[in-house]
Amino acid sequence: MSPPAPITLDEIVRRFGGTVLGDGSTAVNQVGTLENAQPGQISFFAQQRYRKLLDQSRASAVIVGPGDGEVTRRPLIVSDNPYVLFALLSAHFNPPEAFAPGIHPTASVDPDAEVAPSAHVGAHVSIAAGAHVGERAVIGPGTRLGRGVRIGDDCRLFANVIVYHACSLGDRVIVHGGAVIGADGFGLAMDAGAWRKIPQIGRVLIGNDVEIGANTTIDRGALDDTVIEEGVKLDNQIQIGHNCRIGAHTAIAGCVGIAGSTRIGRYCRLGGSAMISGHLHIVDNVEIGGGTAVIKSILRPGTYSGLFPASPHQDWLKNAAHIRHLDALANRVRELESRLAEIERKST
Amino acid sequence: MSPPAPITLDEIVRRFGGTVLGDGSTAVNQVGTLENAQPGQISFFAQQRYRKLLDQSRASAVIVGPGDGEVTRRPLIVSDNPYVLFALLSAHFNPPEAFAPGIHPTASVDPDAEVAPSAHVGAHVSIAAGAHVGERAVIGPGTRLGRGVRIGDDCRLFANVIVYHACSLGDRVIVHGGAVIGADGFGLAMDAGAWRKIPQIGRVLIGNDVEIGANTTIDRGALDDTVIEEGVKLDNQIQIGHNCRIGAHTAIAGCVGIAGSTRIGRYCRLGGSAMISGHLHIVDNVEIGGGTAVIKSILRPGTYSGLFPASPHQDWLKNAAHIRHLDALANRVRELESRLAEIERKST
Amino acid sequence: MSPPAPITLDEIVRRFGGTVLGDGSTAVNQVGTLENAQPGQISFFAQQRYRKLLDQSRASAVIVGPGDGEVTRRPLIVSDNPYVLFALLSAHFNPPEAFAPGIHPTASVDPDAEVAPSAHVGAHVSIAAGAHVGERAVIGPGTRLGRGVRIGDDCRLFANVIVYHACSLGDRVIVHGGAVIGADGFGLAMDAGAWRKIPQIGRVLIGNDVEIGANTTIDRGALDDTVIEEGVKLDNQIQIGHNCRIGAHTAIAGCVGIAGSTRIGRYCRLGGSAMISGHLHIVDNVEIGGGTAVIKSILRPGTYSGLFPASPHQDWLKNAAHIRHLDALANRVRELESRLAEIERKST
Repeated sequence: MSPPAPITLDEIVRRFGGTVLGDGSTAVNQVGTLENAQPGQISFFAQQRYRKLLDQSRASAVIVGPGDGEVTRRPLIVSDNPYVLFALLSAHFNPPEAFAPGIHPTASVDPDAEVAPSAHVGAHVSIAAGAHVGERAVIGPGTRLGRGVRIGDDCRLFANVIVYHACSLGDRVIVHGGAVIGADGFGLAMDAGAWRKIPQIGRVLIGNDVEIGANTTIDRGALDDTVIEEGVKLDNQIQIGHNCRIGAHTAIAGCVGIAGSTRIGRYCRLGGSAMISGHLHIVDNVEIGGGTAVIKSILRPGTYSGLFPASPHQDWLKNAAHIRHLDALANRVRELESRLAEIERKST
Repeated sequence: MSPPAPITLDEIVRRFGGTVLGDGSTAVNQVGTLENAQPGQISFFAQQRYRKLLDQSRASAVIVGPGDGEVTRRPLIVSDNPYVLFALLSAHFNPPEAFAPGIHPTASVDPDAEVAPSAHVGAHVSIAAGAHVGERAVIGPGTRLGRGVRIGDDCRLFANVIVYHACSLGDRVIVHGGAVIGADGFGLAMDAGAWRKIPQIGRVLIGNDVEIGANTTIDRGALDDTVIEEGVKLDNQIQIGHNCRIGAHTAIAGCVGIAGSTRIGRYCRLGGSAMISGHLHIVDNVEIGGGTAVIKSILRPGTYSGLFPASPHQDWLKNAAHIRHLDALANRVRELESRLAEIERKST
Repeated sequence: MSPPAPITLDEIVRRFGGTVLGDGSTAVNQVGTLENAQPGQISFFAQQRYRKLLDQSRASAVIVGPGDGEVTRRPLIVSDNPYVLFALLSAHFNPPEAFAPGIHPTASVDPDAEVAPSAHVGAHVSIAAGAHVGERAVIGPGTRLGRGVRIGDDCRLFANVIVYHACSLGDRVIVHGGAVIGADGFGLAMDAGAWRKIPQIGRVLIGNDVEIGANTTIDRGALDDTVIEEGVKLDNQIQIGHNCRIGAHTAIAGCVGIAGSTRIGRYCRLGGSAMISGHLHIVDNVEIGGGTAVIKSILRPGTYSGLFPASPHQDWLKNAAHIRHLDALANRVRELESRLAEIERKST
């Protein structure tokens, strides 16, 4: 690919907003970190603790927030939301790869599937009967679309994605490599000493503008559907159990597991490796810390945490032992309180 | 697919057991939740807290347990094990998809592999020399069977499954998309500043009626085999290290990690995100709570838990700090006890 | 494959080091565990607690450490580093499978990709324009190499591996099935009620002699690169966020999650299911216990742990409740201390 064309700071603020401080005719053609930006690139400064990196940076210009107009003498763009401006600019310089429309000769598309003429279907893709692939969708190599799957317009499925039968993706959905959408939920009934499988006949329904990370799995519903609402962002290696509903614009970091039938609200944020039990309800605007285990519903917005923090091993050995005997410790404190009260009573 | 044929309640109990209360000529043709069942569907009532949903349900009939014959006036089937009856009925209405026997033209089957004529081999499957695929097995698209792999009769491998060389699956095994069976275990020896790989020459042996979830990984043994006994059920994104043995009919929920050489008994249940250290022994009939870390062998049946529970962030900050100083707190309590004893001694 | 040729103990020590005790003409042709070794095999004894297994073993010879020359009467090889000798011997008996050079007819290789003539490219592999595959590399079936990917000499990619565009693997890198290298990092900016994607324009750079486990994911950098230095060993189902740097010869066990921009030193060891927050720095020679959450940088070498240990469920219920009220307990202890001091003051 040829490098992006340069654009001046004046032109940047004209298109994307913000205010130039310094020489607005400065031209840049790529974004970069303070640490590694080359001359001709524009960087991003957000936290005073990176001040030293800023001073040493070779970036030709920097995007800063409202209060930071004085941090450097080099050309600046001041923006109310500098990270968003940075995102817009990076997207300008780095548009998604373009793929030629058409179906790769090694792909296997059922005659009863419907692929939009503007869609791109990569090598060794298989598409089953009744599936639909929308306009300008890009289906990466080795991807598997089951019977009756619906892929909306402008979707981007990277390589080796699996979408089980009857599941549906909205428009502009991005799915990364190895993600599995619509595998059977974990439904079992114990019958005379052996587990009997409960057929999983629900689907997975995914809204518009959702992004799903590499090797993430979302199970189909047992009877009703599993639902991922619009704008949800899922990182890698997340597991979402059957019949969950994830509210719009919720963002979930890597390695999170959510057990079945849990309903998470809109605009929530779940930190990496959080574990959410099944059949819970978490309201809108809840933030769950990384590694936190949620075993009860959360009915008030706010931030919730729960991590047993790492310590040097010798300290941990002692503290872990105490934790196992906290009940005894609490009893000893109660005992002390009553003995002390008795002494105080007598000495009065 | 055409919708399932209706069946009367009388016919249901004749085939699957239970007792009809109300109009046994009521016909149903699908299962559904209390919340979303349509007229013509049969639902399932198990817990009094769903009583309101039952009252509002449009289901034409409901399966209940022995004590619940009075919960509603609509037609009922009373069963000693209502969830099993529900599973049987759902399986009746929702049989697994049928696949035509034969090998897809895009598949690559080594001439020295043996595929039963009744088996179905999907698009872009590769099967190496010496592999065997049993009768009526369904090998989903993009699946990879290594040299000498054995897949039993009536197995169902969904898409992009990987089975490494020499591993063996029993009959009626279900493997979901992206699962990897038989990758090398994590065996390393430190040699003069670099890790030296220990060849992993064991296999993975999987018994009959096992189900393996999407993106789950089971490592081959270092020398001896990794063994998954009959009837084991594994959810998604589980990691099972080399040389583990999982006892028959044990069920393991999503995101569990089991380190190498651990042996888990029969009829155990492991909650989601549980972490089991290596070289442990867990006896039969042990239940491990979700998110629980097991670092010692468990030699008595029972339920074990260990979760640091989530709290509002401000509370957690305080409690997490205390945890790191529990040893000091315990010492302070001991000190108080001896000072108090001294006072009590004097005042006697 | 034909079984390995036998080799005498005398010949073993001549080639790989160590000292024979007993009959050096004893020949062995495979390694095995004490428990399951057959006559003609050589086993490995490391820990006194396996003494009973040693006594009962049918192994024809045993490798032991310096102090263990007396543990058995059967032929021994004494080695300063017995596990390394065992690894060398196992590698001798169990060389990696040989693959014929060439490109499988079902593979799809872009005319602008460069595949070394000695490389093996398996069934249904796709290789995009600008990619390079080195000498003697083995690219397993269903693997996807994006635009401009570089695969070094003697690499071994197992099945269905995904390497996104522009990522680079050194020489002798092993990647197991389903691993995903170079998917987009989780970079989002909240803009007027919806998440805006930050393009991820960095790469993943992987050094020589790295091994990557099944279904492990390593995200590409947001702007700069994610770097995995030489000799790093990653187990299965690990997630490494964008812009992480993992130092040379660090070994990471299964299910570990490392959030973005964290830098881990050389020769570290991370236990299974450890969780490492983002933007941290962990120095060389740090060992993190299994299941441990690291939320602050670690600037001193040593061993760090943090696990809330499993207990019988009834004990856990009590202790978990106390944990949530530790702050109150600490306050009660402080109150007791001041009341007691007051009494002691008066009674003086």
